[in-house]
Amino acid sequence: MNKAFIIDEDRKRRLGFEEVIFGASKSVALLSDLLKDYVEKNKNVLITKLQAEKAKHLLEDFKTAFYDDESEIFMLSHHEISDESPTRIGIVSAGSSDIGVANETYYTLEYMGVKSEVIHDVGVAGLQRLLDHLEHLKTFDILIVVAGFEGALPTVVGGLLPQPIIAVPTSVGYGTAKAGETALHAMLTSCANGITVVNIDNGYGAAMSAFRMLNLIEK
Amino acid sequence: MNKAFIIDEDRKRRLGFEEVIFGASKSVALLSDLLKDYVEKNKNVLITKLQAEKAKHLLEDFKTAFYDDESEIFMLSHHEISDESPTRIGIVSAGSSDIGVANETYYTLEYMGVKSEVIHDVGVAGLQRLLDHLEHLKTFDILIVVAGFEGALPTVVGGLLPQPIIAVPTSVGYGTAKAGETALHAMLTSCANGITVVNIDNGYGAAMSAFRMLNLIEK
Amino acid sequence: MNKAFIIDEDRKRRLGFEEVIFGASKSVALLSDLLKDYVEKNKNVLITKLQAEKAKHLLEDFKTAFYDDESEIFMLSHHEISDESPTRIGIVSAGSSDIGVANETYYTLEYMGVKSEVIHDVGVAGLQRLLDHLEHLKTFDILIVVAGFEGALPTVVGGLLPQPIIAVPTSVGYGTAKAGETALHAMLTSCANGITVVNIDNGYGAAMSAFRMLNLIEK
Amino acid sequence: MNKAFIIDEDRKRRLGFEEVIFGASKSVALLSDLLKDYVEKNKNVLITKLQAEKAKHLLEDFKTAFYDDESEIFMLSHHEISDESPTRIGIVSAGSSDIGVANETYYTLEYMGVKSEVIHDVGVAGLQRLLDHLEHLKTFDILIVVAGFEGALPTVVGGLLPQPIIAVPTSVGYGTAKAGETALHAMLTSCANGITVVNIDNGYGAAMSAFRMLNLIEK
Amino acid sequence: MNKAFIIDEDRKRRLGFEEVIFGASKSVALLSDLLKDYVEKNKNVLITKLQAEKAKHLLEDFKTAFYDDESEIFMLSHHEISDESPTRIGIVSAGSSDIGVANETYYTLEYMGVKSEVIHDVGVAGLQRLLDHLEHLKTFDILIVVAGFEGALPTVVGGLLPQPIIAVPTSVGYGTAKAGETALHAMLTSCANGITVVNIDNGYGAAMSAFRMLNLIEK
Amino acid sequence: MNKAFIIDEDRKRRLGFEEVIFGASKSVALLSDLLKDYVEKNKNVLITKLQAEKAKHLLEDFKTAFYDDESEIFMLSHHEISDESPTRIGIVSAGSSDIGVANETYYTLEYMGVKSEVIHDVGVAGLQRLLDHLEHLKTFDILIVVAGFEGALPTVVGGLLPQPIIAVPTSVGYGTAKAGETALHAMLTSCANGITVVNIDNGYGAAMSAFRMLNLIEK
Amino acid sequence: MNKAFIIDEDRKRRLGFEEVIFGASKSVALLSDLLKDYVEKNKNVLITKLQAEKAKHLLEDFKTAFYDDESEIFMLSHHEISDESPTRIGIVSAGSSDIGVANETYYTLEYMGVKSEVIHDVGVAGLQRLLDHLEHLKTFDILIVVAGFEGALPTVVGGLLPQPIIAVPTSVGYGTAKAGETALHAMLTSCANGITVVNIDNGYGAAMSAFRMLNLIEK
Amino acid sequence: MNKAFIIDEDRKRRLGFEEVIFGASKSVALLSDLLKDYVEKNKNVLITKLQAEKAKHLLEDFKTAFYDDESEIFMLSHHEISDESPTRIGIVSAGSSDIGVANETYYTLEYMGVKSEVIHDVGVAGLQRLLDHLEHLKTFDILIVVAGFEGALPTVVGGLLPQPIIAVPTSVGYGTAKAGETALHAMLTSCANGITVVNIDNGYGAAMSAFRMLNLIEK
Repeated sequence: MNKAFIIDEDRKRRLGFEEVIFGASKSVALLSDLLKDYVEKNKNVLITKLQAEKAKHLLEDFKTAFYDDESEIFMLSHHEISDESPTRIGIVSAGSSDIGVANETYYTLEYMGVKSEVIHDVGVAGLQRLLDHLEHLKTFDILIVVAGFEGALPTVVGGLLPQPIIAVPTSVGYGTAKAGETALHAMLTSCANGITVVNIDNGYGAAMSAFRMLNLIEK
Repeated sequence: MNKAFIIDEDRKRRLGFEEVIFGASKSVALLSDLLKDYVEKNKNVLITKLQAEKAKHLLEDFKTAFYDDESEIFMLSHHEISDESPTRIGIVSAGSSDIGVANETYYTLEYMGVKSEVIHDVGVAGLQRLLDHLEHLKTFDILIVVAGFEGALPTVVGGLLPQPIIAVPTSVGYGTAKAGETALHAMLTSCANGITVVNIDNGYGAAMSAFRMLNLIEK
Repeated sequence: MNKAFIIDEDRKRRLGFEEVIFGASKSVALLSDLLKDYVEKNKNVLITKLQAEKAKHLLEDFKTAFYDDESEIFMLSHHEISDESPTRIGIVSAGSSDIGVANETYYTLEYMGVKSEVIHDVGVAGLQRLLDHLEHLKTFDILIVVAGFEGALPTVVGGLLPQPIIAVPTSVGYGTAKAGETALHAMLTSCANGITVVNIDNGYGAAMSAFRMLNLIEK
Repeated sequence: MNKAFIIDEDRKRRLGFEEVIFGASKSVALLSDLLKDYVEKNKNVLITKLQAEKAKHLLEDFKTAFYDDESEIFMLSHHEISDESPTRIGIVSAGSSDIGVANETYYTLEYMGVKSEVIHDVGVAGLQRLLDHLEHLKTFDILIVVAGFEGALPTVVGGLLPQPIIAVPTSVGYGTAKAGETALHAMLTSCANGITVVNIDNGYGAAMSAFRMLNLIEK
Repeated sequence: MNKAFIIDEDRKRRLGFEEVIFGASKSVALLSDLLKDYVEKNKNVLITKLQAEKAKHLLEDFKTAFYDDESEIFMLSHHEISDESPTRIGIVSAGSSDIGVANETYYTLEYMGVKSEVIHDVGVAGLQRLLDHLEHLKTFDILIVVAGFEGALPTVVGGLLPQPIIAVPTSVGYGTAKAGETALHAMLTSCANGITVVNIDNGYGAAMSAFRMLNLIEK
Repeated sequence: MNKAFIIDEDRKRRLGFEEVIFGASKSVALLSDLLKDYVEKNKNVLITKLQAEKAKHLLEDFKTAFYDDESEIFMLSHHEISDESPTRIGIVSAGSSDIGVANETYYTLEYMGVKSEVIHDVGVAGLQRLLDHLEHLKTFDILIVVAGFEGALPTVVGGLLPQPIIAVPTSVGYGTAKAGETALHAMLTSCANGITVVNIDNGYGAAMSAFRMLNLIEK
Repeated sequence: MNKAFIIDEDRKRRLGFEEVIFGASKSVALLSDLLKDYVEKNKNVLITKLQAEKAKHLLEDFKTAFYDDESEIFMLSHHEISDESPTRIGIVSAGSSDIGVANETYYTLEYMGVKSEVIHDVGVAGLQRLLDHLEHLKTFDILIVVAGFEGALPTVVGGLLPQPIIAVPTSVGYGTAKAGETALHAMLTSCANGITVVNIDNGYGAAMSAFRMLNLIEK
Repeated sequence: MNKAFIIDEDRKRRLGFEEVIFGASKSVALLSDLLKDYVEKNKNVLITKLQAEKAKHLLEDFKTAFYDDESEIFMLSHHEISDESPTRIGIVSAGSSDIGVANETYYTLEYMGVKSEVIHDVGVAGLQRLLDHLEHLKTFDILIVVAGFEGALPTVVGGLLPQPIIAVPTSVGYGTAKAGETALHAMLTSCANGITVVNIDNGYGAAMSAFRMLNLIEK
C-alpha cells in the first residue's frame, strides 16, 4: 500500500501553526516514518499522548528529542521563547495529580513559542490556597484551569476573575469521577459565566485554544 | 383485590419516625384511601413529590392539610416545635432555582419537629455571598447543602466547615446538567473530605438523615 | 422564610458584567420578585431560557421588556451599541433549526453592548455554502459556531480559520443525536486544534466567553 | 462434551460468501480445531480481530497463512483477483491512526476477490487534502469512509459525492471520543443524506456490506 | 436579521437529489417561509418529522400538499413513477407498530420517483411469517428492514438473503428498549454479515441510502 | 398499502398461547382494525400498555371489553378459571406504587386461565411485613416479585424461599432510580441465587414466563 | 480483625442448595481460608469466576479439585448424577465464542446433580442450524439460551418452543456489543413472550434458576 | 518548574483533620517528595488507593510505614487510641469480597484515633446472619454499611435500625454491577429513609463523614 499519511503542509499558512501528531494509537513503525518525513522537511514535531514505552524506542533513533513522562509529550525542537516575552498564560491546577495534563499544556505552549506559568495544587477544598494566588492570577491574559474529581475549580476561578478561562477536565479520580466525565460535565454546566471547555485530559487542546486567543492581543 | 397497601405500624418504635408516602406515582384514589386510613388511626401524614394537580383534589377532602407548591410537600398535622428549641440544622442553597428542594427539606424537618433555617442563593460563582455567611453557618450542628448545575457548593462548604455535611443535588440546569446527575456525581467525587450525598432532588431524604444524626446529640 | 435570593452586587466590579437570571426552573412569582428588585435598583436584566408561557405573564407587568420566542431571551433594557463599533463576533449556524441558540448568543451580546452578525445555515453537507462565506468570516475577531446533529461544522471551520472558535452544540436532531450530546462530544473530540466548547444549547455561555475574550483586544 | 462449533456449510449458496471466524474471544485451542476443520474441507478461512499473540501460535501450525498486525486479520488463502478487474471500492481514512480498520476492510475485500484502494489521511481538519482527491474519489462505485475522533469525514464526503457511502467509526481518540461511540453517533446523525453505518472498528462489516452492494452492479 | 436559511441549490447537480427539510425543530413561521421560497423557485419539497399540529397549519396555506400522520411526512408534489418501473426495494417491518417508520421510507422513495413495497409484521417471534415471504423477498434489489424492541429481524433476514440490507431501528418498545437504542446496537452488532444501519426511526435516511445504491444498477 | 399486520395464527399450536397486542405505539385506527379481525375470527384479545385515552375510544366500539386504568390492560373475553383450580402463583409487590405492574401480571394470568394472588406493599424497609407473609408465600409454586426504587425485594425473597422467582423492576422512583434501570440492574446482580428478570414494568412478560413454567408441573 | 466471612449454614435447609463462592474479587489467601473451612465441615465447594492464575495457586493445595479454564469454574467434589436420570436441561449457545458461559452453566448443573446437554453454535445468522435441532430441543424441560453480539437467539427460540427459556447474554463482541449490554437489553425487550434473563456472562445464575424450576417437576 | 504541590496547612484548624494524599494517580517520585515534606514538618501521613507496586517502592524509603494490601492504605504513624475509648462505629459488610473497602474505613478511623469494629459478610441473601447481629449493631453510634452487587444491605439495615447510616457501594460484581454503579444507585434510591451515600469504593470518605458526625456527640 501507499504511504499511510499525508501531512497538511498548508496548515501553517491557514492557521498559524503546523500539524501535530496524535501518538496514542500509532505504531512505533508508523511514528518513525512520520518523524523521518518531518525531519527531512526540516519541520518541528510535536507528538501528544505518546506512551512511555513507544517513546523509548523513538528516542533511540531521534536522540535530540525531548520527552516528558508525566505529560507524554514528545518534541523535536520548537520555537524560541525570548526572555523578555511576557508570561501571558497562567495554568492553574487543582491537585498535584493533575500535573501530567498541566505539563501537556505547558510544553505545548513552549513548543509554540509562548511563555506560561503553572500554579499547582490550589483546589477548592482548601480555598485559601487559591485566594492567596488571586493577585498573581490577575496578571495573566488567559487562564487555563485544570481539575479532576468534581472539577469545581474553574467555577470558583470564573466567579472571581474576568479573563478568558479555558477549563480542562482530567481523568483523575475513581468511581463516579467516571474517568473525567464528571469534571467535564461540571465544567460545562458551571454556574460561573463564560467558561469554555476542552476534552478530558486535553492539555494540548487548551494550549492551542489559548494560542488562537493570543491573535486577539496582537491586533 | 384486597387493599393495596400495608402500613408499617412498627416503624416508629424501631426507627423513631413513621412511614411517609411517596406521592408521585400513586393515583388520587389510592392516596385518598391511604389518607383516610391514617386519619382514622389518628396518625400524622407526610406525602412527598405530590403533583399540584393531585394535591388540589386531595385538599378538597382533607381541608386542614398543608400543601406547598414549590416543594410538592403535603402534610396533615405535624410535630410541635417549641420556640426555645435550638435551630440545629442549616439548609444552604446555591441558587434561587433550588428553592423547591430546600423547602422539601425544611418542611420535612418541621414535620418531624425539628427547627431549621434556609440560607438561599450562596452559590460559588459569587463566593463572597457564602463567605459573608460563614460565621453564621458555624452555629449549626448539621449542614444540608443543596445545589444544581455543577454542584460545587458542598465541596467549598466542606473545605471551610467541620460539621456533618449532607449534599443534595438538584435537577436544576440543562444539557450536561443531565437532570441532576452531574451535580450528584460532582458531590460524590468531591475533593473535600467526608461529605455524604442523597438522591437527586431528595430534600426529604436529606432531612431524614439529619434526623438520624440528631440522635447523636441527645446521647 | 426570608427572601429566596441574594443578588451578587459585586459581580460587575469583579468580572465586568452583572448577574443574569436562569429562567427555566423559576416560578413566575419568584421571577417577578427578582425583576422588581432589579428595577428598583435601576439595573438591567437578562433572563435566559424563559418559557413562552411564563414570559407572557411577566410581559404584562413589565411592558417595556423585550422577549424573543425562538431564543427564549427576556431583557429589560440593555447596553447601547454605537453604529461605529466594529462587528467583532461572527455567529455561524449549521442549519436553520439552530436559529434559537444562535439568537440567544446574538441577543446576549447585544445586551452586553457588543455587535455581532449571524450567518445562518452553512452546514457541511453543502460545503460550498461555507466556502462562499470564508472571506467574510475572516473579518471577525471571534467565531461562535452553532450546530446540532453530528456537530461537524466547528471542525471544518477550525481547520480553515485561525480565530478563537467557540463551539455550541444544539439539541437539534433525534435518536442518536441524543439531545445534543453527540454534537457536544464531537466538538470536544474535534480533530481541528484549539476549539473550545460550551454546554448544549448554551448560546448565552458562548456570548459570555466571547465577552471575556474581548478583554484581550482592548489591552 | 461434543465439538464446540458447527460450520454453516450452506452459507455460500444462500449468501454468496462463506462463514468467517471472529477471533477475539476464542482460545488458541478452539481456533486451531476450527482451522483444521476448514483445511480438511478445503475451504478458505478468514479470522478477524485475532490478537497478535494468538496469531503467533497459529502461524506456527499454519505456515502458509497471512497475518497483518495493524488489522489483526488472519487468512488462509483467498480468492484470486485478476489484474483487469476494476477497482470498484475506495476506502477513505481520516487519519493515519485509522490504518488498522482501513486495512481490515482492504484485506477482507481482497479475500473476497474484490479490488479496492485505500486513500489515507484526508480528515476534514485539513479539508484541502480531501478536495484534492475529489475527482479520483468520483471513479469508485462505492466509498467506505473510516474515521475516529469526531467522525466528521463521512458527512463531508456524503455532501460532495453521490455514491453509496458506508461509514466506519473507529475507536481512535480519548476522553469524549468514548472508544468510538462519538464517531458512531456522529455518523448516524449525519446531516448528509443516505449514509449508512457499521459497528465501531468494523472494517470487516464494511467490506461485507460493500460486497452485498456489488450484486447490484452485476445485474 | 437576514433570512435564516440558505438553500443548497447545487445539491441536485452534485448528488442527484435536492435538499430536504427537517421539520421537527422548526417553527411554523420558518417552515412557511421556506415553503414559499421553494414554491417560488418551482421546486419539490419534502419535510420529514413534521408534527401533526404544525402540519395542520401548513396545510391551510399549501392546500395541494400531502401529509401522512403515521410517518409525519409532508410533500409538495414529487417525481412521477411510471407503472412499468420495477419495484426494486422491499421494506420489511417487524411489527405493526413500526408502520410510521416504514411509511417514511415508502413515501420518501415515492417522492424520489422510486417504487417500493412494504411487507408488514414479519417479526422473528413468529418466524414462519418471514419464511412465507422468503421467495418474494428474493425479488427485490435492496431490502430495508425496520424493527423496534430487540431489533433481531435484520439479523435473521441477513442470514437468509444476499442483497444489500439497510437496517432501521425504531423507537418502539419500553424500558430496556431505550427508545430504539437497543435495536440500534443489536443491528450494529449483528452476527449476520454486511448489514448497514441508519439512525433510530430514520426511515428517510434508509430511503436515501437505497437511492444512492440504485446508482450502481444503472451503470 | 396492504393491511398493516399479519396475525401469527400458528402461535397457539407452537407455544400454547396466542399473540397479544402491544398497545402503546399503535394508533386507535390500527388497533380498531386489529380488534375487528380478532373478533371476526372469534379469538380472545389482550392489549397491553394501552393508554387510557385510546382505551376510551376502543371501549365505545367494543363495549364488552374490560379495561384497568392502573395496569393499562385491555381484554376482550378470556379463559375461564374454575374455582377449584389451585392458586399457583404469588405476586409480591414492594410498594403500593407498584400496583399497576402487579395488576398487569394478575390480569394477564387471569386472561390465560391461571389463578394468582397479589400480596401488596411488603418492601424491605419494613422487613416484618414480608416475614409475616413468609409461610403464606411458601404455598405458591412460583413467585413474581415486583419492585421499584432500589429493587431489593427479590434478593431478600430469593434468600428466604426456594421457588422460581421472576423479578419485575418497575419505573417507580426518581433521580437515580433512572426510570427502573436501577431496580433492573440490582435484580440482575442480586447476590441471591437463581433469580430471573424481565424488562422494566413488564408485568405481562412475568406472567408469560410463569405460564411457560407451569408446563413443568403438568408433566 | 476477626474472620472475614460467615458461611450461611442454613441455606441448604431454606433453599435446597448451599452457598457458593464468588471468586473474582477475593484474594488467594481469603479463598484458601474459605476452602479450608468448607473442607473441615465436609462440604462441597463451588467457586465461580476464578481467574486461572488464582486457580493455579489453589490447585496446589487442593489437589482433588476440578478447574475448567474456559468457564473459570472451580469445584471440590459435587453431587452424583445417576446414568438413568433424565437430561432435563438443554443449553443452547449462539456461537463457539460463548463456550465459557455455556460451560459455566453445564458444570454448575453437574455440581448440583443435574444432567444437561450443550448444543453449540446454532446462532440465527445460519438459521438452519437451529431448525435442524428443533425436534431435539423439544425434548428438554427447560432451555437455557446463551448468546453474545446482538443476542437474537433467545427471541427466535422463544418464538418456536413453549418451554421455560432462561436467556444468558454474554460479553462476546466489540464496539456496540458494549461488553454484553446490548445482548442483555435485546433479550429483555424480546418480542417473543415469557423469556426471562440473568446477568451478563452469568452462566451460574442460569443454572441456579433452572434448579429452582426443577422443583416444579418433582411436585 | 516549582514544587508541584501545596499542603493545606490550615486544614487541621478549620476542619479538625489534616490533608490526606490520593495515591492512585501520583508517580512514586511525586509521592516520595510529598512524604519527605510531611516527615520534615513532623506530620502524620495517610495515602489512599496506593497500588501495591508503588507502595513497595515507598516502603523501602519509609520503613516505619504501615501498608495494607487489601485496602491499599499507606500510613506513617497515626493517632493513639486508648483502650477505654468506646467503639462508636460499626462497619458492616455484605460479602467477604468487600473486605478491601471495609478495611479502608477501619484503618482511616484508626488513623484518626477512632475505634471501630468490622462485622463481615452479613449480606441479605442469608438474612439470618444480619438478624443475628442486630442487638450488637444497636450498640454503635454510627453504622457504615459496605456492599457491592445489588447493594441491598443498607436498605435492610436502614429499615431495622435508627442510627445514622453511611452506605458505601463497592465495585464488587460483574456485568450489570457496572463496577459499583448499580450498588451506588440502589443505595441512593433506597426505600429506607435517611441513608446517605459516598462514592464507589470510598471507604475513606465514609470514615471521614463518620468523623464529622462524631463532633455531634462531643457537644
